[in-house]
Order: sequence, then structure tokens, then C-alpha cells
Amino acid sequence: MNLTPSNSSESKRPLILVTNDDGITSLGIRTLVEIAQTIGEVVVVAPNSPQSGMGHAITIGQPLRLYSTELFTEVDEYECSGTPADCVKLAKHYVLKDRSPDLVVSGINHGSNSSISILYSGTMSAAIEAAIEGIPAIGFSLCDYREDASFEHVKEYVRSIILMALEKGIPKGVALNVNFPKLSEEPLKGIKICRQANAKWQEKFDYRKDPYGRGYLWMAGDFVNFDHDKEDTDEWALSQNYISVVPCKYDLTSYEALESISSWSK
Amino acid sequence: MNLTPSNSSESKRPLILVTNDDGITSLGIRTLVEIAQTIGEVVVVAPNSPQSGMGHAITIGQPLRLYSTELFTEVDEYECSGTPADCVKLAKHYVLKDRSPDLVVSGINHGSNSSISILYSGTMSAAIEAAIEGIPAIGFSLCDYREDASFEHVKEYVRSIILMALEKGIPKGVALNVNFPKLSEEPLKGIKICRQANAKWQEKFDYRKDPYGRGYLWMAGDFVNFDHDKEDTDEWALSQNYISVVPCKYDLTSYEALESISSWSK
Repeated sequence: MNLTPSNSSESKRPLILVTNDDGITSLGIRTLVEIAQTIGEVVVVAPNSPQSGMGHAITIGQPLRLYSTELFTEVDEYECSGTPADCVKLAKHYVLKDRSPDLVVSGINHGSNSSISILYSGTMSAAIEAAIEGIPAIGFSLCDYREDASFEHVKEYVRSIILMALEKGIPKGVALNVNFPKLSEEPLKGIKICRQANAKWQEKFDYRKDPYGRGYLWMAGDFVNFDHDKEDTDEWALSQNYISVVPCKYDLTSYEALESISSWSK
Repeated sequence: MNLTPSNSSESKRPLILVTNDDGITSLGIRTLVEIAQTIGEVVVVAPNSPQSGMGHAITIGQPLRLYSTELFTEVDEYECSGTPADCVKLAKHYVLKDRSPDLVVSGINHGSNSSISILYSGTMSAAIEAAIEGIPAIGFSLCDYREDASFEHVKEYVRSIILMALEKGIPKGVALNVNFPKLSEEPLKGIKICRQANAKWQEKFDYRKDPYGRGYLWMAGDFVNFDHDKEDTDEWALSQNYISVVPCKYDLTSYEALESISSWSK
């Protein structure tokens, strides 16, 4: 007979680290924190300013600032001057010290991070940084760039994906890239497990003059999907109003190319 | 009989775009430009300041500055306020307009970009950005962080790798991650084609106070190689005084994980 006082329901609550790239005050992270709190103990370490497009940048050669905040209720929360990847490193190795999160969730990003955008995405780089640390991780993004985008239609899916990740696990070293179609009249069709579509941004540069007569350039891209007819891709799933889930890894080796350049050794 | 005046030797000189992440004035890029000039027509678009650790960051929501410079001889050259990935985008879609480079070379980086460091590397992100554009690309890095690092022992290899890339080609969508051991008494043993070692940076944060009494943190990592005994990795090659060459791709899909999470669809 076990007489140890039971606080197992308390101690078994999973520890969920929440971060993002739109900054700690964005609606997307507030939505994600709210959902994560229904499932586990939540710690937030997120950038103090928008970090969209920061990719897997980290802050080297400069110090970082970390301040505790009071934006949420019953959450251990910090804003950081660094990038999303910095936030994960700081959370794991400084804020949480010896505790390792059961899950890292990043987002919900205001804007798509499907296909090639994963490379430029701070949201996904935070999730991939967690995967490097051996922590299960999910990046969530909504294909709606607006600051006041509606997240209502994705909440139940975010919750069920987090629960599935905690229950079934995510393979070691893998982070999930989850993208949601924007709110429309048609209900979401469900989840599709996909590969990353082969696509790129075809950039245009708009040349202008500043008030001092010096030139500057604005970058603006058109999205080009080379896999537009491929039904196994994230872009196709999103176009059909499915939620796309792409398992991602951080080994960039092109194993297919190893053989073709093997003659280079000498 | 063809009477057209022949300037084929001139017109066939390959167009080589050079960039880096240490900034346009660094010794590494000067060395790379010098080598590239012995092979082809060189255009330089490089950051106006150090961009180490910038990963695949791009500048969105802010304008870019681009100025022509006169640091090199007989080179069309520009410094840019953006990231290494921005430089490639600007070069391809603005500076070169309708011309596509035959090769993009990035570096030579002052410091290693082997194994996991590829994710944080501006040098390699520039090369990968070129691969996304369908341009053959190579990132060169020297495992010596010093500003005045000696590049003498790598020059002939850089040249022969560029020539091999131009002659034999690089598979579409692939960028090569080339790392050189630092100068030592032992001569380099040659080139090894490798995979990316599974490794990570185990971060430590040093807490200090600024002159105003506010806390700040310095990030400093120890490198942990989980593949230290694996002879097919870049880390092993470098430890044995080989030059490591890893073919890299920008499709992050973990195809191995697709099946294990396929039950998540509903």
C-alpha cells in the first residue's frame, strides 16, 4: 500500500515552453498561451519586438536582455531582446535551469510559414532549435498576416495537436511545421501530413529616395510554387483548406547528392 | 566558314557572385575575390557589417541600402545593409537584373560552419539562398575565427573546388558546405565528401550588470558532437585534417518521420 501523499495530478502536468517571432504582445502568442494553459504548466520566453524573417539567427558578439513580464495570468513569463532561437536557448539553459520542457510550442504566427518560408521563419527556427535540444517541438502558423487575424477556427486543432504530441510523441530531432488556412466560410477539412513544397519567393526591389536624397530599396516577393500540382505538399493541403503538418529535421545533408559529388574527393 | 569575330574566350568567362557574412572588408572575402578573379568575371554584393550568426534571416518590414564600393580591382562591387541572404536576393533580382551567375561563392568565413553551425551561419544561408534560386553555390569556411587568420594553405583548394563546380556541376538545389582545417604544421590531407555531423551547442549564459545596474547576459556555448566516432561526418574529416564537403539542401522535410506521424491525419 502506497502511503506517499499523492500530488501526481499536479506533478504530472506537462511543462510547456511557449515562444514566437511576432513578439510577446501579439495576439498569436496570447492565443497559444491560453490553449497551452488548459493542458500544462506554461513558461513563456519570447522576443520583446517583432522578429519575423529572422530565420535561425542567434545573437553572438552582443549581450542579451531578459526581463520578466506580467502579461499573462499564472505564467512564468519573460521578454527577451534576442531572436526566437535565442529565446529557446535562454529558456532551456538559463530560465529553466535543470528542468527540460515536455514540449516547446512556437507561434501562433501571423502569416504562413509553409514550404520555403520555413527557412526565413523565426517561428519555425525556435521549434527547430528545440528539436536540436532534443525537445519535442511544434511551430504553429496561420495563413493570415493581419495583426487582428481571427484564431477562433484553429483553437481546437492547436489543442488537439498539442495533446497528440504529448501523448504519441514526436520522433527525436523532429519539429512539426503546422500551418492553418485563414478563416473562411468553409470549415477546415482536417489535418494532412505533408512534405515541404518546392517553392521560392521571386523578389522585386522597389527603389525610392529618402528625404535626404539617398536611395533605398524595399524587397517584396511573389510566391512561386514549383509543386503546385503535387498533392503530397503543404501548399496543396492549405489550398484545399486542410491544416498542413510537415515533420522537419535539422540535418541539411543532401544524401541524394553525396554520390554524385563523391568523385570530388582526392 | 564562320567569319564572326571570335571573342568566345572573353564571353565564356563564368560570372561568379561573391558574398559573405563577415562583411565586405574582411580578409576572407578579399581572399575569395582574388581567387575567383583568376577564373571568371566577379561581382561582389556583401554586407556592410559583420553578420555572423544571422542564419537565414532576411530584411522584411525595413528598407535596404545598397552602395557601390571601390575595395577591389576590376570588380563590380556593392555593400549592402542587409543580411547575407538579402545580398543574394539583391544581386540576383536587382544588381544583375537579367543575368544569372554561373556560381555563387560565399566566404571565406572566419570560423567553422560545420555540422549544426550551418543553421546559424550567414555564410551558408547565402549559399542556400542561391541554391533556392537554382544557382550552383558553395560556402567556404576556415576553422579559425581570428580576423587575421591565414588563408594561404586553402587558396589552391578553393580554386580547384570552384573549377570542379563549374566543370562538373552541382546537383540542382544543392549548396556545398566546405570547411577547411586551420593552418597547422601538418599539410591538408585532401577533400572528404561527408554528411553533417549530429551535434549541438551546449549554451552557458554569463550574467553581468551594466554601468546602470541593469542585468544582461552573454551567450557562450560548448560544442557537443554526438557523432564523434562517425567517420562519414564533417567533424571527423576536419579532426583528421581533411577538408569537409557536405552537399546541403533546403527541403527540411523529415521523410523518415512522415510515416510515424501519419496517424495524426483525421
